[in-house]
Amino acid sequence: MVGGGQLARMTHQAAIALGQSLRVLSESPDDSAALVAADVRIGTHTDLAALREFAKGCDAVTFDHEHVPTGHIAALAAEGVKIYPGAEAIVFAQDKQRMRERLTDLGAPVPLWRPVSSVSDISDFAALVAANRAARSDASQSGWPVVAKAVRGGYDGRGVWMLDGPEAAEQLVASGTPLIVEERVPLRRELAALVARSPFGQVAAYPVVETVQQDGICVEVLAPAPGLSEERALEAQQLAIDLANALGVVGLLAVELFETEAGIVVNELAMRPHNSGHWTIEGARTSQFEQHLRAVLDYPMGETSLTAPAVVMANVLGGQPGGMSIDERMHHLFASDPGARVHLYGKQIRPGRKIGHVTVLGDDMTEVRARAVRAAKWLQEGE
Amino acid sequence: MVGGGQLARMTHQAAIALGQSLRVLSESPDDSAALVAADVRIGTHTDLAALREFAKGCDAVTFDHEHVPTGHIAALAAEGVKIYPGAEAIVFAQDKQRMRERLTDLGAPVPLWRPVSSVSDISDFAALVAANRAARSDASQSGWPVVAKAVRGGYDGRGVWMLDGPEAAEQLVASGTPLIVEERVPLRRELAALVARSPFGQVAAYPVVETVQQDGICVEVLAPAPGLSEERALEAQQLAIDLANALGVVGLLAVELFETEAGIVVNELAMRPHNSGHWTIEGARTSQFEQHLRAVLDYPMGETSLTAPAVVMANVLGGQPGGMSIDERMHHLFASDPGARVHLYGKQIRPGRKIGHVTVLGDDMTEVRARAVRAAKWLQEGE
Repeated sequence: MVGGGQLARMTHQAAIALGQSLRVLSESPDDSAALVAADVRIGTHTDLAALREFAKGCDAVTFDHEHVPTGHIAALAAEGVKIYPGAEAIVFAQDKQRMRERLTDLGAPVPLWRPVSSVSDISDFAALVAANRAARSDASQSGWPVVAKAVRGGYDGRGVWMLDGPEAAEQLVASGTPLIVEERVPLRRELAALVARSPFGQVAAYPVVETVQQDGICVEVLAPAPGLSEERALEAQQLAIDLANALGVVGLLAVELFETEAGIVVNELAMRPHNSGHWTIEGARTSQFEQHLRAVLDYPMGETSLTAPAVVMANVLGGQPGGMSIDERMHHLFASDPGARVHLYGKQIRPGRKIGHVTVLGDDMTEVRARAVRAAKWLQEGE
Repeated sequence: MVGGGQLARMTHQAAIALGQSLRVLSESPDDSAALVAADVRIGTHTDLAALREFAKGCDAVTFDHEHVPTGHIAALAAEGVKIYPGAEAIVFAQDKQRMRERLTDLGAPVPLWRPVSSVSDISDFAALVAANRAARSDASQSGWPVVAKAVRGGYDGRGVWMLDGPEAAEQLVASGTPLIVEERVPLRRELAALVARSPFGQVAAYPVVETVQQDGICVEVLAPAPGLSEERALEAQQLAIDLANALGVVGLLAVELFETEAGIVVNELAMRPHNSGHWTIEGARTSQFEQHLRAVLDYPMGETSLTAPAVVMANVLGGQPGGMSIDERMHHLFASDPGARVHLYGKQIRPGRKIGHVTVLGDDMTEVRARAVRAAKWLQEGE
């Protein structure tokens, strides 16, 4: 696995059960996965020679992030390396403009969007949104605010800007970042549909979940999404399956969705184990990490059903420095909730950084959610 | 963890979730745990200098087997190393005579037994068994066969002999192995009670399981033990809790039990993660591996409740050479049973060697057991 973050760390745990050991290409020996894996190579994912050396002797190569240049992926594939997902698929997780274009071509539900390169492009787009709204007799008078997104490199809320008028647009355009703009969707909540696809073309779909964001960072995942109609859940799963097939994804595909009054629209795509699937470690019969390995190793997919009626994952973010050590916090948490499942990533604590997550399972979603949130807050703030 | 077998391998998986990385003292770089852990030291558990060097910088030291000399454990403890279970506890898992003496003193239920050093000791013991049986009007006319056990070093059926008369006894005594003898208990089945105890003295008990042996090797574990009365289950759990406290165990204690018409008697003790607890990885809220770590790190114990009404673990033993590769077998198994949970230990296959296990969860014990046995047979024999 290229990249030594927490996704590689948890994939290593899954690899061990399959009788494998994950080789990790890590930037630093202190990276999450490098701390726990037996076979760690230090190197950078943008270095083709390092990737080539790394791939030697691997059964298959995959990624814990989407930042490996597609040219490098294609080069290795041409040399006979089994590398998944392939360059022709992962580009749609790297480049938001290409993704929006392809999804539009496929007729998948997306927000109104445009590529933009000037302030007037953005203002024109806001005018288009306003006109559409007027035609729908929407109460909103203006097209603003619009959502600007960096075409490449966004993550956890970075690379996304809410522009409330031409002035804000001007500032952003001046930075030179290639952008697209999207209509701000009147969303009810966010959902995620996670599927895995093998090279053979078998696809397995997990139950659709609700994701809760704070400042653009996923903080909670509720499985299954509470109150989601069977019909809409099937629609979301079918959409993810269709996209996995159409884009030729091998491995996991996470489709981040907005749920609106009118239906679902695709927000983002990720092609790797995803934060919205961490709950599957205990909450599904097969974890997303094992499922990703099964896919890239071309094994048949594992069962995706829930292991409990209600499962909630809450991310643990680094809190303010000071106070109890993380070890003391673990003591208190374990004493107060012996059933909370803790996953720490071995990372240095920095405010707002994802340093772990907690999963709670049970029968009642409200109760399970309260426990998960309390547990994460304990680890985060020591109170 | 001293010892690099599959128990250390699976403990490493649990350590990762707790934000730790297991350091392993392994005989060989090819040992199960050495293949997957980041911090592996090569050395032998009988070498005090190696143990001392290994322990430097560890938060706590524990074992994946019971073969570390108690003198070494005591020496390290005296030097300030947190090493669990301690010498004064683990001796009862190393030495069957000391164990039987201590359990007899504690009034715990044990089979009739004696230390023996001559053929006549064994014959006298058989006569004693016969006299007891006659006094109980037992139908059995003879005290033979009796069960001889090596005082030290037995494992997986090795070091246990069924002696059907003085001639067999003569041969065994001639070998010079220090022995005890026990009455052959008219057992209905075998059970196991698993508990974990922290240095603080908190004890957590898992549901009592049924273990199925073949040629002295555990091949299946059924959780919870089918048809076991609540009363007897509580009796077995209480016995294990009492023993953990009385012996001062820190970490896991597995009490292997015989269930007879008259009640339960203790067969063996193990003080480490145990084959009878592998089902807990998916089948209990906290796995035995995490529980052992929590105990030796002095964290509060985790919840031990079942995650499904019926859980069955079946061991995968090495089959005869030839036929499908293990990889092909995995393909077939995953295709035919997507819900079977596979754990392979990364070991070279030798006939009869434990190379992995499979766990199946569900609502109906009969069905779950059939699936687990079929899955293990697939991996074992490729059919």
